Amino acid sequence: MKRLEQQLTLLMELDKLKSVLRRTRIKSSAGRFENSAEHSWHVAIMALLLEEHANEPVDIAVVVKMLLLHDMVEIDAGDTFVYDLAASLEQEQKELAAANRLFAMLPQEQGDELFSIWQEFEAAESAEAKFAKALDRLIPMLLNYHNQGQSWLENDVSKEQVKKVNQKIEKGSQVLWDKAQSLIEEAVENGWLKH
Amino acid sequence: MKRLEQQLTLLMELDKLKSVLRRTRIKSSAGRFENSAEHSWHVAIMALLLEEHANEPVDIAVVVKMLLLHDMVEIDAGDTFVYDLAASLEQEQKELAAANRLFAMLPQEQGDELFSIWQEFEAAESAEAKFAKALDRLIPMLLNYHNQGQSWLENDVSKEQVKKVNQKIEKGSQVLWDKAQSLIEEAVENGWLKH
Repeated sequence: MKRLEQQLTLLMELDKLKSVLRRTRIKSSAGRFENSAEHSWHVAIMALLLEEHANEPVDIAVVVKMLLLHDMVEIDAGDTFVYDLAASLEQEQKELAAANRLFAMLPQEQGDELFSIWQEFEAAESAEAKFAKALDRLIPMLLNYHNQGQSWLENDVSKEQVKKVNQKIEKGSQVLWDKAQSLIEEAVENGWLKH
Repeated sequence: MKRLEQQLTLLMELDKLKSVLRRTRIKSSAGRFENSAEHSWHVAIMALLLEEHANEPVDIAVVVKMLLLHDMVEIDAGDTFVYDLAASLEQEQKELAAANRLFAMLPQEQGDELFSIWQEFEAAESAEAKFAKALDRLIPMLLNYHNQGQSWLENDVSKEQVKKVNQKIEKGSQVLWDKAQSLIEEAVENGWLKH
């Protein structure tokens, strides 16, 4: 069972994503930092809940696959804060190298298939990828909002940054971008986001 | 947008699953206890990797949905250790009450649909549910094995208990049950499981 052994080896490697920390804090557990594995679960279940708000009809199974896979490259590359634009360029190279290493652990045709789903997400061109990206951008905003602006305040983020970085939500879901904008306005009023 | 508000309220409630701790420890991060949210991610991605080993052809999108939802009832009911058979009976009632509360937060037809997927998983009768259950049983065994029998040793678990509780893996995947049995034999030889 060489295939099974390859698949189980990657599965155990993926355990490491539970130790990659993000800048967002969870609401419970005294607000510890969220890790990328639990984030991946949260955003995948978000896709099931919010499918109807996609701009175009989407194959939700593909959206969920993308979201389950999308952060596994952080095992090697680490998480980059979405507002750190300078780091984002270098990050792209690191993530590509990580994808090459991780998907190559699988039987070849399976690794190729999952790699191409990951690339489709990164390219953000298909209806599924645009919607998946929209969810991935909205969920930390929701957590921040419900944590009284925690990671915006901790990282000195401005309203303009939040608008600029998250505007792409609109490409996946106008409804969710409208919601995001109203959260941003409230956050500014509450002093959680600076001008 | 009443529907969206209902969906987002449940989404934020689900954040609590990140604070429900299991008996299994993750391999990295000095072996802290695993939480049910990151476990749900790990077992959902496991389904994508191991689909070919199901006894019968499965609709993998349904399997993944089941696994994303399967533990959300633990937000109210907590996690029960799989080898604590006495607790399992009472747990069933608590989980049903939790499912009733949580799915009722959604627009009705959406809540009903997800509730029925959760019930299908619990009933363990469809091909999808049997395979999903098999994965959910196997993954803590894999983590334990790769942690030198950690939760078996910490909780004084015997080979006979592990065999009895996990034999149902066979109903979803003979291949994975064969693998599980060889892990159990090795664990006994290594002194990680008592006779």
